[in-house]
Amino acid sequence: MADPAEPSLLLREDRDGVATLTLNRPSARNALSFALLEALRDAFAALAEDESVRAVVLAAAGPVFCAGHDLKEMTCYRAEPDRGAQQFEQLFGLCSAVMMAIPALPQPVIAAVEGVATAAGCQLVASCDLAVAGAEARFATPGVQIGLFCSTPMVALSRNLSRKAAMRMLLTADRVGAEEARTLGLVSDVAQAGGALAHAQDLARKIAARSAYTVRVGKRAFYEQIEMPLADAYAHAGRVMAQNMLARSAEDGIGAFLNRKGR
Amino acid sequence: MADPAEPSLLLREDRDGVATLTLNRPSARNALSFALLEALRDAFAALAEDESVRAVVLAAAGPVFCAGHDLKEMTCYRAEPDRGAQQFEQLFGLCSAVMMAIPALPQPVIAAVEGVATAAGCQLVASCDLAVAGAEARFATPGVQIGLFCSTPMVALSRNLSRKAAMRMLLTADRVGAEEARTLGLVSDVAQAGGALAHAQDLARKIAARSAYTVRVGKRAFYEQIEMPLADAYAHAGRVMAQNMLARSAEDGIGAFLNRKGR
Amino acid sequence: MADPAEPSLLLREDRDGVATLTLNRPSARNALSFALLEALRDAFAALAEDESVRAVVLAAAGPVFCAGHDLKEMTCYRAEPDRGAQQFEQLFGLCSAVMMAIPALPQPVIAAVEGVATAAGCQLVASCDLAVAGAEARFATPGVQIGLFCSTPMVALSRNLSRKAAMRMLLTADRVGAEEARTLGLVSDVAQAGGALAHAQDLARKIAARSAYTVRVGKRAFYEQIEMPLADAYAHAGRVMAQNMLARSAEDGIGAFLNRKGR
Repeated sequence: MADPAEPSLLLREDRDGVATLTLNRPSARNALSFALLEALRDAFAALAEDESVRAVVLAAAGPVFCAGHDLKEMTCYRAEPDRGAQQFEQLFGLCSAVMMAIPALPQPVIAAVEGVATAAGCQLVASCDLAVAGAEARFATPGVQIGLFCSTPMVALSRNLSRKAAMRMLLTADRVGAEEARTLGLVSDVAQAGGALAHAQDLARKIAARSAYTVRVGKRAFYEQIEMPLADAYAHAGRVMAQNMLARSAEDGIGAFLNRKGR
Repeated sequence: MADPAEPSLLLREDRDGVATLTLNRPSARNALSFALLEALRDAFAALAEDESVRAVVLAAAGPVFCAGHDLKEMTCYRAEPDRGAQQFEQLFGLCSAVMMAIPALPQPVIAAVEGVATAAGCQLVASCDLAVAGAEARFATPGVQIGLFCSTPMVALSRNLSRKAAMRMLLTADRVGAEEARTLGLVSDVAQAGGALAHAQDLARKIAARSAYTVRVGKRAFYEQIEMPLADAYAHAGRVMAQNMLARSAEDGIGAFLNRKGR
Repeated sequence: MADPAEPSLLLREDRDGVATLTLNRPSARNALSFALLEALRDAFAALAEDESVRAVVLAAAGPVFCAGHDLKEMTCYRAEPDRGAQQFEQLFGLCSAVMMAIPALPQPVIAAVEGVATAAGCQLVASCDLAVAGAEARFATPGVQIGLFCSTPMVALSRNLSRKAAMRMLLTADRVGAEEARTLGLVSDVAQAGGALAHAQDLARKIAARSAYTVRVGKRAFYEQIEMPLADAYAHAGRVMAQNMLARSAEDGIGAFLNRKGR
């Protein structure tokens, strides 16, 4: 339980149907401690049930977006009889659950990245549906430098970048700039330096103005069909689309569209 | 049955082993009505059996390449007792069958895109083996704007673009220009404005000059192996290639190549 | 067995934990004869057991990186009673085994490409973990021109490039330059003309300076998880990472990192 006197590790502010989550451990470079991961898990669980929210922005307080796991906290677990084995399994299990909660969330999630996003922080960006990088943002998966390969980050990374680009980040630990990150597929948008949050919220408001039902149906179908063979993907998406046609949002939207054209 | 007095919805012209199909509903922005989809299905079925054709170009009449489904026709089905449910399933089933007929066709299919290709029109481009965009062509999947997410287009889109680039098109409905479409993987070539058809036919003639057997074997193997794990893909492709070596086209082609080098 | 008087088809030189393999049939454009493929297979098998080597560079002697299969040798097999059927199957099986030995190798393999890499030579580059192209390097899969579609090269190609980019190379036989190869995902780095080997060895030394255990664990997990559905990939990578945390390399590396930060 969080001490009510402590500032919250994760802030949430809702406006115009957009919830902005802000990682709020700037003194620890927003490292993903157990407590912060639990706060993210709980926030996503709450958002999944919250029909007032139609899009989510994931931002960070301070100059660093997110430095990955909290190595200091992890090192403490080495004092335990099993040298931390059980804690580490729990930690990576929790972290993976948080990352998978993003594609599973009904609402689109847009990362707004300024500063450096490394290791699990880079994975967090890769796991979002869209991502905006400020022009001076930097991305890296540097675990190899400290003997801990970024093996869970690679899951998200290798589903967004081409193989050699992902491998290069993982093996060299080299930083990738905002424009290159967009070329490689890690982010979808580049904003001016300092402008990532405003740009991400613009995108979110645009999405929030659409039918929430339609966006939810489409996002879910995207991640379902992407892991299927082509014929299965079409069978599934075809059913989704026929169902979508019967919804009020499509009936009204198509009606309004045809009226506009007819005028 | 088409009324013989009506102009054909889909034109076909064969020259030099290249069949050019032209979507021919310019007054309806080449929208994919049931009848046009059936015409495409039948045209692909005929081409599959036609050994005189070695490559196919898919073009469009008028200023719009293809605006996607025919929303007006679809809206008519809402008057039926089931509110159109059965018709919508049939329509998306037929549409998916047409899209899957393209990779299944023995001959390579090259889209030649001028103007706007949206929704299922964009999917048609994504489904082709190659695609040439005129410099002013534009691509979008704007269904989200009218409450009908582009769920079947996403199947083709997400197998050509990186995840965030596909998601961005699907969630924002933003138009993508020709050069960006090439960078993202949606088209393979950009021609000067108005030059897409000539460029696509050049590519098609180049392919038509090769052994039809070799092209057919290679195209089929491409789509078969791409859905397999690596070891299975190699086992399959290895058998295909050993078989290919025994064909007359390889024997002659390799013989001629060695003779040229030997001279 | 190699004739000891013959120059070796494949050179190996080790320095600073980096093994450089050099294709050494420059007079035959480094074509992958049975003997050269066997030499590669044996070299990779030896490297897999050699803990003194932490990264591998794959280079080539002479102006051509690798022209693919040895068509002259293959043509000789046509004289056999089965017209070469058995030999061709063996050859493509051996070739596929060599290509798959690269992702399976514990150490990262970095191609250093000057000149032209075609057909199975291009596949060799695509199969490496990283690849450096000299600025004047060129890549192609021109089998379609001689009636023998590059069906096994397509396996590696289509796992690195977007579909239309791969299809374009396979159907047109057009050459792709170094910068375009990087944009498409075929290589990870471009060096100045003539500088590919030095650049690849720099990358290799950088990797060789890291924990061999960590690199091995990470590279293996990369290729394992990439063929799994998302949830399975995370379950697997999470176990790998928890295990990695218990290794000496991570304990020391993280300890040193925290000490540096604490100072």
